Amino acid sequence: MSLNLISEWSSFGGRLSVHEHESQLTQCPMRFAVFEPPLIKQGPVPVLWYLSGLTCTWANVMEKSGIMAHAAEQGMLVVAPDTSPRGAQVADHADYDLGQGAGFYLTATQAPWTPHYKMDSYLLTDLSLCIEKHFNVNMERQGIMGHSMGGHGAITLHLKHPSLYKSCSALAPIVSPSQVPWGQKALKAYLGEDLAEWEQYDASALVRKNPSKATLLIDQGAADPFLSEQLQPDAFLKACELSGQQVQHRMHQGYDHSYYFIASMIKGHVAHHARALTSS
Amino acid sequence: MSLNLISEWSSFGGRLSVHEHESQLTQCPMRFAVFEPPLIKQGPVPVLWYLSGLTCTWANVMEKSGIMAHAAEQGMLVVAPDTSPRGAQVADHADYDLGQGAGFYLTATQAPWTPHYKMDSYLLTDLSLCIEKHFNVNMERQGIMGHSMGGHGAITLHLKHPSLYKSCSALAPIVSPSQVPWGQKALKAYLGEDLAEWEQYDASALVRKNPSKATLLIDQGAADPFLSEQLQPDAFLKACELSGQQVQHRMHQGYDHSYYFIASMIKGHVAHHARALTSS
Repeated sequence: MSLNLISEWSSFGGRLSVHEHESQLTQCPMRFAVFEPPLIKQGPVPVLWYLSGLTCTWANVMEKSGIMAHAAEQGMLVVAPDTSPRGAQVADHADYDLGQGAGFYLTATQAPWTPHYKMDSYLLTDLSLCIEKHFNVNMERQGIMGHSMGGHGAITLHLKHPSLYKSCSALAPIVSPSQVPWGQKALKAYLGEDLAEWEQYDASALVRKNPSKATLLIDQGAADPFLSEQLQPDAFLKACELSGQQVQHRMHQGYDHSYYFIASMIKGHVAHHARALTSS
Repeated sequence: MSLNLISEWSSFGGRLSVHEHESQLTQCPMRFAVFEPPLIKQGPVPVLWYLSGLTCTWANVMEKSGIMAHAAEQGMLVVAPDTSPRGAQVADHADYDLGQGAGFYLTATQAPWTPHYKMDSYLLTDLSLCIEKHFNVNMERQGIMGHSMGGHGAITLHLKHPSLYKSCSALAPIVSPSQVPWGQKALKAYLGEDLAEWEQYDASALVRKNPSKATLLIDQGAADPFLSEQLQPDAFLKACELSGQQVQHRMHQGYDHSYYFIASMIKGHVAHHARALTSS
């Protein structure tokens, strides 16, 4: 697969670049951004995956989170994938929380989503291979984080592939999609009615069966308008407690769901991954 | 003048808020943002004015620059004004570099701009009084900075009011507006044909006559597409040398005119102002 450079910028002593490639899995052109820290010139660096929330592209995190400042300091490459397949030939929905921009990091089994919506497989194969091939990275050292729907993606991918994504953190993640409106709508559309299928993509269900050895870091805004209806961290925390999953969960008074919340917390998240991934 | 709260967020342990007030000078509602650092609870803090570039509002710098992280650490309040008067009753132009979003921090003398375009006077009076009245600030300690057109605003306001804006810095500023297309177009429209009027708003002309005692900090991207035509730092640097104005001018290979450039440099700018404004 060839890689087309869409744009690039010098940033924090390193390089931010946006690329497009054809994915065999999603069967459409996919865009993503990569931040390469200055240290990459000295040798392979760890990889931190940042999975974005509903409606986002690579741009939100790179423009608004401040993540590059800290990834530059810690010497980590950041990959920011898109949140779904996109394009005129890709199924979509008028609502912001289904279809393009709302891929939920899963492999759809239902029409009309099946041909393109395979974001988890895309990340694990096509995009991973692409990153490994084109950037000076150490794929033995990968961490994964995300916001909201991307937090759901980060935690589920970590729990299913703990030896691949060795560290994990999330900001205001969806952790019990089977139990909340955002998740129920998406899982029903993409996976159908079989609740056993949903459990593959439900962090609370996964952690009950397969806790990881990592300590998850989760930051949460106490003034997040989605907290009680869509996020429901308590169910996940209880599941972690029962299964022995280590988790550092921090509630922050006054913070909401916005990128101001993300930007305020991002330094701690990059440091969390750096501790796990950059020690020799 | 009353102050209407438009929105607010917890951010970096402090508070970002957006306000609207009626300005007697611009004769229209004006919006601006303020970041209050955590330290403000302990007493009055210095004020850092951030003047934005063409097309921007308060939002660009607060969303994209990372300035709040450093202002929180240094204990400085940041004010981000709009770049022009706005509204259906305010004169405008189809081009991005004239009219709304392109106020050039001056007081227009020509129709149709005269009734509303008074951004320098607005900052100096209406907005300053508003900040002093509604926020816990030390108005004896004010610094000013800006990007592109906002760098022009910051340097000219500092040079004309050095005891008010005690520190000054700029990112990719317009420094010789009388000599470059952006400036010539705006100055002619807003001020007419009299070149003596233009000199009041030309940093290179001002610094020849009235250098300040401060050291200006200017960061510049060597890959900025506007460098040679619109920015022309050499003329300004030569004027500084002739008049004895101290200036630290740093060229950065590979950097352009974008907010990625600004974000990469912002820490140093906040530190520059903190050194001048927060020492006892």
